[in-house]
Amino acid sequence: MTTTALMNQQFRLAARPVGMPKRSDWEQTTEPVRDINDGEIVVKALYLSLDPAMRGWMNEGKSYIRPVAIGETMRAGGVGVIVASKSDKFAVGDTVSGGIGVQQYWVGAADDKSANFYKISPAMAPLTTWLNTLGMPGMTGYFGLIESGQPKAGDTVVVSGAAGAVGMTVGQVAKQLGCRVVGIAGGKEKCDFVVNELGFDACIDYKNSSVKDGLKEHCPGGVDVFFDNVGGEILDTVLTRINLRARIVICGAISQYNNTTPVKGPANYLSLLVNRARMEGIVVFDYADRYHVGVAAMAKWMQEGTFKSREDVVDGLENFPEALLMLFEGKNFGKLVLKVADA
Amino acid sequence: MTTTALMNQQFRLAARPVGMPKRSDWEQTTEPVRDINDGEIVVKALYLSLDPAMRGWMNEGKSYIRPVAIGETMRAGGVGVIVASKSDKFAVGDTVSGGIGVQQYWVGAADDKSANFYKISPAMAPLTTWLNTLGMPGMTGYFGLIESGQPKAGDTVVVSGAAGAVGMTVGQVAKQLGCRVVGIAGGKEKCDFVVNELGFDACIDYKNSSVKDGLKEHCPGGVDVFFDNVGGEILDTVLTRINLRARIVICGAISQYNNTTPVKGPANYLSLLVNRARMEGIVVFDYADRYHVGVAAMAKWMQEGTFKSREDVVDGLENFPEALLMLFEGKNFGKLVLKVADA
Repeated sequence: MTTTALMNQQFRLAARPVGMPKRSDWEQTTEPVRDINDGEIVVKALYLSLDPAMRGWMNEGKSYIRPVAIGETMRAGGVGVIVASKSDKFAVGDTVSGGIGVQQYWVGAADDKSANFYKISPAMAPLTTWLNTLGMPGMTGYFGLIESGQPKAGDTVVVSGAAGAVGMTVGQVAKQLGCRVVGIAGGKEKCDFVVNELGFDACIDYKNSSVKDGLKEHCPGGVDVFFDNVGGEILDTVLTRINLRARIVICGAISQYNNTTPVKGPANYLSLLVNRARMEGIVVFDYADRYHVGVAAMAKWMQEGTFKSREDVVDGLENFPEALLMLFEGKNFGKLVLKVADA
Repeated sequence: MTTTALMNQQFRLAARPVGMPKRSDWEQTTEPVRDINDGEIVVKALYLSLDPAMRGWMNEGKSYIRPVAIGETMRAGGVGVIVASKSDKFAVGDTVSGGIGVQQYWVGAADDKSANFYKISPAMAPLTTWLNTLGMPGMTGYFGLIESGQPKAGDTVVVSGAAGAVGMTVGQVAKQLGCRVVGIAGGKEKCDFVVNELGFDACIDYKNSSVKDGLKEHCPGGVDVFFDNVGGEILDTVLTRINLRARIVICGAISQYNNTTPVKGPANYLSLLVNRARMEGIVVFDYADRYHVGVAAMAKWMQEGTFKSREDVVDGLENFPEALLMLFEGKNFGKLVLKVADA
């Protein structure tokens, strides 16, 4: 295959967004795929992962990962297929997961550290599941809950963003560990899903009911672990209901990512003092050397039928800007992925 | 000694304060000391401990300890002498520490759980030191730093309220453990004291200089442990300078205790996520079974001359309301104690 015959469409960051990202914050470019040198590969994107964390990567400033530069192709994880290889590491036809970026083709060294491609098995689970339960969100939920949340059987675990990619995993892992699990999600449909399909004990619909009342009703013994994906008022409300030595896992704060005003800090943080409780931040990359453990555990549960993965697929690379906004508007239902091409 | 000949002056809570406690929030009463029954004692107050935590005890609502009731004698720790005893546990003349309350005489069962009297040795350290380094503030700083802060030699430890009772202990313990120690305190005199007298490496005067600039200058390698007694803007500023896996010990938030508006939550709490850092609340009572370890360690350092205790003594029970306010105005210099009587 002559890769130079391939044209590559890309979304590049044109401007740092203020508040919600607009289409004008992106520049669409098309360029030919260059010839590859020894050790290099070309990955054809099939599905891209759309994640709340992407919003943070668009801002300047020190974080756990460097910001995407103006003019740079937007960073994104994805699954794809090797269409050209001058590396022993991957053969043409291999299915891989890694940092493809918001584009049709990724070109570079097979052992590129930041892209971090690794082979995945399409026979083991659908491709989109490798971006969800068996990918970053799944690893975030699995290791963040177990290592930072330290749930014990009988604990009450509350998770916000319960119908999102990470939240679904957290709740289901907690159920596997024998915990009482209460989700917080937006809307009746999502709440019904996590209770009826995923087996959560209860779900509080923050859009149509009081989170405070819901916690009183569904967590009569208080909250031992809170896995927070949203921040803002919900974090503050849960802080009023935590138990002695509760663990609060700070995974994200999607309610705050597009703020043009300062982030709302948790005014009730002194509940940590009263309850000798802990609030800890997590980043999935820290668990990279153990991903295989999480993949094996959850793949087994899925094969046994006691664990579910759900993805919400938007079709077409050109729809990237609008698809990304779905995350911040709470419109996706399950892990949001962008389909770029057929395998 | 006939205890019924003794008259007992007391400060009782008359109203729950809004903002700073006023004199009208207190009722002064005088009553005779009653006869004691078998198993009971009378403790004559010598020195009372004035602590920021007292402000919290005056509020209604669930906390780590029940609120002081309206009409009840204000809760306070203190040192005193046994002036009457029908208990085998204490003899007349014994010096004790425990929950005397804001009054001249405490009367009750020698084994009262909430007062928790225990003998102290006036030969080992001055009486006021038993309310400071060898008392609650010392135990708070010693165990809070070691168990929640987990400092390692070479770590940079920052402590707010550095010239206060807890802060002095934290900084000096951290120095003993081989850490770099930077205090934050209000005013040149306090800063000079913690650097020149207590051996801190540096101190940032938050009243006369920028905390942000001070942290940049004095913590060029970032902050590994932050022991926070004050909350508010200082907590938020330190959060911008923490290192990977930093430990933030939430001991108090004196800047927020008299707020009539909601507590200011730490807007920069997502720094916990970026840095996989931890924020944990502590309460000294949790370490009660190990107080003797902390007392022994710090008494030894004091005897060796490498550890100092400093108390700020206000004379006269009748000055209690005004003396308490000194804490919130940053007017005390060292542990604030109220002298009630001579031994």
